[in-house]
Amino acid sequence: MPARVDHDARRREIAEALWRVLARDGFGGLSLRTVAAEMGATTGLVTHYFGSRAELIDHALELLHARTDASLGEADVPLGRASLRTRLLAVLPTTGEAAELSRIWVGFWGLAIVDAGLSAREAARYERWRAWLRPHVAAGWPEADVETSVDLLTSSTHGLVVQALFDPDRFGPERLEALVDAQLARLGG
Amino acid sequence: MPARVDHDARRREIAEALWRVLARDGFGGLSLRTVAAEMGATTGLVTHYFGSRAELIDHALELLHARTDASLGEADVPLGRASLRTRLLAVLPTTGEAAELSRIWVGFWGLAIVDAGLSAREAARYERWRAWLRPHVAAGWPEADVETSVDLLTSSTHGLVVQALFDPDRFGPERLEALVDAQLARLGG
Repeated sequence: MPARVDHDARRREIAEALWRVLARDGFGGLSLRTVAAEMGATTGLVTHYFGSRAELIDHALELLHARTDASLGEADVPLGRASLRTRLLAVLPTTGEAAELSRIWVGFWGLAIVDAGLSAREAARYERWRAWLRPHVAAGWPEADVETSVDLLTSSTHGLVVQALFDPDRFGPERLEALVDAQLARLGG
Repeated sequence: MPARVDHDARRREIAEALWRVLARDGFGGLSLRTVAAEMGATTGLVTHYFGSRAELIDHALELLHARTDASLGEADVPLGRASLRTRLLAVLPTTGEAAELSRIWVGFWGLAIVDAGLSAREAARYERWRAWLRPHVAAGWPEADVETSVDLLTSSTHGLVVQALFDPDRFGPERLEALVDAQLARLGG
């Protein structure tokens, strides 16, 4: 009798291959065929687990969200400046792993921006991010306009991610940290 | 005798179709076949002018840069706060046309982020953008740290573009203008 296939292990193996394709070639390079090639398997094996490119993209997003949430650390931390600073720094590409995650995010934006359903999911994710920031801003900067501060912190952090990915020589870890501190220092203004 | 083909007119026609494909489907949807279909022409007609998808992408970038530069207005304006504010507002998706241009840029990032050559070109473009901002910051905010201010203005403006594209209801033209003014008000801090 043939050995019983461990379906969970196989799905994990596909997920790892999918992630490597995303990190190297972005969403533009993601297909049933390229994931299969990355595993050295047949396309048929991948379609046994993911019936279409759309299902593969759904799974890629699940992985992207799970890995991003893990990279952000605990959500339930003391309110205020220190926790907020830690969270913003966690978003920036200060390590190779964080840069890989950010590259996949920027690639996802390119996909989502022309897809109404994915755009709506991304808008909802932004709102959850702002909901996390609000009480930290209110606690850390009692004099600040919370919504304005939350929008500017979100903008400057994400815009900095993009600049840093394209120009890592200018935006090394120390420079990124200094820029986050400069933006935080301007929060009460 | 057949009518002489106007090659310049034909190239312009292809460029217009290419732009419509980009605006609707992003770089992921751009190919010789999709541009031909958009024109109601054969793929052979398009390949007569653009030999490969790479050539089509090169031309898309030329158009993207030319239309972006045109949207930014005159480069040679009086130094200082008013000119800087005008330039930042021109980047934001406050009109349908500006939103279309921004959507194509965000899609381009997704392509460039996994392509070393395109990443280097984007880094160089960012440096030209900073070179434009520097004397305006120095003239308008003599007490400010120019490099920090230039990096934060660039980050917050581009990050705001992304948020606004995904959530135009939250980020209408008035809100975008207020956020640019809030960031500018914090520049000297």
